[in-house]
Amino acid sequence: MKKIILRGCNGRMGQEITKLVKLNEQTEIVAGVDVTNTIDNGYPVYLSFEEVKEKADVIIDFASPKNISEMLEFAKVNKVPIVLCTTGLSENDIRAVEETAKEVAVLRSANMSLGVNVMIKLLKAAAKMLESADFDIEIVEKHHNQKLDAPSGTALALADGINEVLSEKYDYKYDRSEDRKKREKKEIGISAVRGGTIVGEHEVIFAGLDEIIEIKHTAYSRVIFAKGAVHGAVFLADKGPGLYQMSDVIS
Amino acid sequence: MKKIILRGCNGRMGQEITKLVKLNEQTEIVAGVDVTNTIDNGYPVYLSFEEVKEKADVIIDFASPKNISEMLEFAKVNKVPIVLCTTGLSENDIRAVEETAKEVAVLRSANMSLGVNVMIKLLKAAAKMLESADFDIEIVEKHHNQKLDAPSGTALALADGINEVLSEKYDYKYDRSEDRKKREKKEIGISAVRGGTIVGEHEVIFAGLDEIIEIKHTAYSRVIFAKGAVHGAVFLADKGPGLYQMSDVIS
Amino acid sequence: MKKIILRGCNGRMGQEITKLVKLNEQTEIVAGVDVTNTIDNGYPVYLSFEEVKEKADVIIDFASPKNISEMLEFAKVNKVPIVLCTTGLSENDIRAVEETAKEVAVLRSANMSLGVNVMIKLLKAAAKMLESADFDIEIVEKHHNQKLDAPSGTALALADGINEVLSEKYDYKYDRSEDRKKREKKEIGISAVRGGTIVGEHEVIFAGLDEIIEIKHTAYSRVIFAKGAVHGAVFLADKGPGLYQMSDVIS
Amino acid sequence: MKKIILRGCNGRMGQEITKLVKLNEQTEIVAGVDVTNTIDNGYPVYLSFEEVKEKADVIIDFASPKNISEMLEFAKVNKVPIVLCTTGLSENDIRAVEETAKEVAVLRSANMSLGVNVMIKLLKAAAKMLESADFDIEIVEKHHNQKLDAPSGTALALADGINEVLSEKYDYKYDRSEDRKKREKKEIGISAVRGGTIVGEHEVIFAGLDEIIEIKHTAYSRVIFAKGAVHGAVFLADKGPGLYQMSDVIS
Repeated sequence: MKKIILRGCNGRMGQEITKLVKLNEQTEIVAGVDVTNTIDNGYPVYLSFEEVKEKADVIIDFASPKNISEMLEFAKVNKVPIVLCTTGLSENDIRAVEETAKEVAVLRSANMSLGVNVMIKLLKAAAKMLESADFDIEIVEKHHNQKLDAPSGTALALADGINEVLSEKYDYKYDRSEDRKKREKKEIGISAVRGGTIVGEHEVIFAGLDEIIEIKHTAYSRVIFAKGAVHGAVFLADKGPGLYQMSDVIS
Repeated sequence: MKKIILRGCNGRMGQEITKLVKLNEQTEIVAGVDVTNTIDNGYPVYLSFEEVKEKADVIIDFASPKNISEMLEFAKVNKVPIVLCTTGLSENDIRAVEETAKEVAVLRSANMSLGVNVMIKLLKAAAKMLESADFDIEIVEKHHNQKLDAPSGTALALADGINEVLSEKYDYKYDRSEDRKKREKKEIGISAVRGGTIVGEHEVIFAGLDEIIEIKHTAYSRVIFAKGAVHGAVFLADKGPGLYQMSDVIS
Repeated sequence: MKKIILRGCNGRMGQEITKLVKLNEQTEIVAGVDVTNTIDNGYPVYLSFEEVKEKADVIIDFASPKNISEMLEFAKVNKVPIVLCTTGLSENDIRAVEETAKEVAVLRSANMSLGVNVMIKLLKAAAKMLESADFDIEIVEKHHNQKLDAPSGTALALADGINEVLSEKYDYKYDRSEDRKKREKKEIGISAVRGGTIVGEHEVIFAGLDEIIEIKHTAYSRVIFAKGAVHGAVFLADKGPGLYQMSDVIS
Repeated sequence: MKKIILRGCNGRMGQEITKLVKLNEQTEIVAGVDVTNTIDNGYPVYLSFEEVKEKADVIIDFASPKNISEMLEFAKVNKVPIVLCTTGLSENDIRAVEETAKEVAVLRSANMSLGVNVMIKLLKAAAKMLESADFDIEIVEKHHNQKLDAPSGTALALADGINEVLSEKYDYKYDRSEDRKKREKKEIGISAVRGGTIVGEHEVIFAGLDEIIEIKHTAYSRVIFAKGAVHGAVFLADKGPGLYQMSDVIS
């Protein structure tokens, strides 16, 4: 039974993790840390890490980057690994995280879902096998109409993953409406579709002479990020210092 | 039995039509016109319309716009309708076509396939039914890596068709990578994917609260344009003067 | 402001409707009826219709068929239309519903979502336009791994909708693994995919010579059925006696 | 430059290979063998292997199984590897092929396309990574309305490939319309869609808790089988005795 401290326990993702862990026999939340303490989660909730008295095997963080240093300090002193799901870290934050990872295990990924990380592995395998056979690579991602950025961070992570295995780096192409020319061989087209409440779809197309291979991931709810974080926590609990990714959890 | 004169009979699309018409019991090619006369098509081929002696019910044109005036003249003098599948007409050409249509029937469409034209009708019906129910509209089109223009003329025709029935005109959005903002309500996103030998795919997405309706057309070969042209020829053979579209052929 | 009585208010769908109505300015729930009364919904909840004192414009029913007669009686006496979303009605129940519809408006559909009902209209339009052009019709539906029946009631409703407009009735084909023969022209293949937590996907394919038209509906959550029911309630509130369907709500 | 003898050179696939090899600088057809000799292919065509005088590095066979023994004999005597694309071999034929493979290299696969064989490798990788994470596996294949068998041999090869890496063998489920029960965990549903002129689509779905991974192959023409055969021929030309598969060509 892995004992978890959950930072950001009263946020949307924190509540998802609370629900998931209750159903999971390998894990248990022993304490929460959040800026509010208004929900009865069945575990003690503290306003700061200084108040936490419970022993834990791993921290899951789904809070904002604010006050992140307090958590990093706690982790180093108590030798507790961190599954870091916070986004929007500043460069200073990232440097502090990297320092922390010299003393305890830290897991951090662009996308915490199991499926997306399996997809990255499949894409690398496909790109390697098809590279010499003249296939063009394109990505189409779809998200809800409230999303601010385009393309999604996950789409870029997929493209970066493919580029890691290609013998030459491909450029990313976001818009073709301004050109009047044939497609360049060494490019990956990335299209961003926005509409309704779409949680997240990522489709990668390998298009060759009269055949196409597509690899697609569809998310139906944000529960998959909670599930991935708990998976990651179980994996990380007994790992030594270092920076880890979801790809390490899968293999 | 409709008698056809086929302009551009020795080009790729001309040959497809020649094959199709042989299998079709409603139609017959009585003469071809082309700049070369090297293929045995089973019908006489002339270098210019001046040499054509055969009587015909309809002309199908899949040649280049060059020398188009000769054909228009022939059509007017002999009262023969024209299925005009030529692309890349100049403004002068278009004016000449419109003049011709005052004397004989002329059929002209952005896309000659039956399926795409059925799709436009479905899109209009869908857009009308969903307009008040808060659905976002997006288009993704996919074509081969040799195509010069993006988005495709057909994708624009689909968007234009939708705009015809909306109570307010929506803008077309080709690239979101430069912004950092939520989707605008009154826009239609149009993404262009390019790769391999894809003949042509057009997908329109209506994305609402927790549900999506998609309408998609896939072309497997250029035969569908030939098929549409022959369908159009049968339809047009007994029509009076005027400009017609494939949508008229369907309904 | 339409006043609603919600039968089954404390069930899963009842709670979804409660949430939706709070966000909706056209509607208000004035009373709930359920077998339990343990949740604070912000409106009075009764164990039976006999206790309901509030005046209402329409009833929404998402409860089980048990005790349905009590609701039908209430509706007839008080002249309140019913949006009937209960499934699994017995033949006796259905007869009683039909009797009720002689005195008040009753709305009942195989699938309450706006999208699926729009899809049925599109399918009918497509089937009519393509009937003479030699297209084969196939349906693929996907649902979660806990669903008991296959194919889904909605898939059958789509097929029935298509059959209504075809000049000849097509048979439904659920399994081809036992035959060794070409596809029959007058059949609609219906395939049922089951896996994970898929809420519901329905895809209809019109496959012709070298081209395909697909119409697809994807549900991301059960909220769409709640949304459809509330839409239906607003529509029904001022209608006279009779049996109505979601298709009437759309057009 | 690999020298090829092409058996079945005047059939549909033989002609595709003839065209492809002309565009390919690594290969050359030095002789054809076929039951007819009516087409000018630019290489000599013989009615039987006994007449073939040319030296070759490899045979590609796309003919019927009839008279296959004559080719096998020629291969053994002259030490020429065979890319065997014939289908419908009898048990006797298969035994003779296995005997031949003891003396020369023989390549034989359920599906000769590069893409499908890459897909099998991806499926195995995906199935292994997802096995412990509770994903359901389903296959949907789509083919033209003239195909006699269902599901396709390729769909079965995909399922067999997945089964090879699972720790327990899954059953194949072709029809769910007769049951009224939840999906079994240890099954792979296989659905066969038939319509129009669809060349071949194979989609494998891994459906888990609120996420789906899909891997899909689409064939646009039979050219891909010709392309795979030529790829295989180049690979096989310098291999020693043994039975090979397209999966060996890729890795």
